[in-house]
Amino acid sequence: MTEHQPMTVLDEDACWAMLHDQEFGRLAFHLADEVHLVPINYAVDDRRRLVFRTAEGSKLLGLTMNADVAFEIDEYTEDVARSVVVRGRAHQLEGDEADATDQLALRPWVEGAKFNVIAVEVDEIAGRHFELTRPWLHMMHHEI
Amino acid sequence: MTEHQPMTVLDEDACWAMLHDQEFGRLAFHLADEVHLVPINYAVDDRRRLVFRTAEGSKLLGLTMNADVAFEIDEYTEDVARSVVVRGRAHQLEGDEADATDQLALRPWVEGAKFNVIAVEVDEIAGRHFELTRPWLHMMHHEI
Repeated sequence: MTEHQPMTVLDEDACWAMLHDQEFGRLAFHLADEVHLVPINYAVDDRRRLVFRTAEGSKLLGLTMNADVAFEIDEYTEDVARSVVVRGRAHQLEGDEADATDQLALRPWVEGAKFNVIAVEVDEIAGRHFELTRPWLHMMHHEI
Repeated sequence: MTEHQPMTVLDEDACWAMLHDQEFGRLAFHLADEVHLVPINYAVDDRRRLVFRTAEGSKLLGLTMNADVAFEIDEYTEDVARSVVVRGRAHQLEGDEADATDQLALRPWVEGAKFNVIAVEVDEIAGRHFELTRPWLHMMHHEI
């Protein structure tokens, strides 16, 4: 990465490292002819797919009808921001394959029954690093 | 909001307050038959729409072909998480209407020419508040 470019690209290893480090992201999916977006907590399964649990009917309905999804994580400080966006195909895991996700660091942030295990097979992964210029930050009284 | 429900709903005022407080979110949009997702910084225009600037061709191409979008912001601490998800229709602002966004708190985080001003007319807004149960947090050596 060069120092003075406002935007640089993260290589694939850096993207996967960031996906491993985090456990909270946002999933965009088709629901009929609409695009929907939900925050989810997730885990990385063997560096080729993401997994999450859900009890939400609409989420599953969308994925059943159209597997095409996008997923995003990000992080930022005062000076830099980074994002990783994945595109892939979602499908429900069943039986042994679903049970095997118990071994992953898929820790539900919210209590409650979440019976369905969904995997997102990663087709594309793109990470970006931004140098931020926010001269107004020192004037703000709430933290970002 | 009740104290012991893991998930409660934010009312519309709370959703708009959170949209006003933040300036960084994620936009999901159609691009041909795919769903795409990008982090953007945004501002609230008069409590009925969101505005942002972009120079990205693919983003505009998608919005031109299909105005249907979803937008998400979130925040969390060790104990609670909140998210607001908007669904709406995106369109490009031109002329005086585009110039008027200079009056908004639409502060670009990243330097560079961003010529196109996009507005998202909000059709639906939904906020959720989660009580988190993450007993593993004290074992983690990195901050969330």
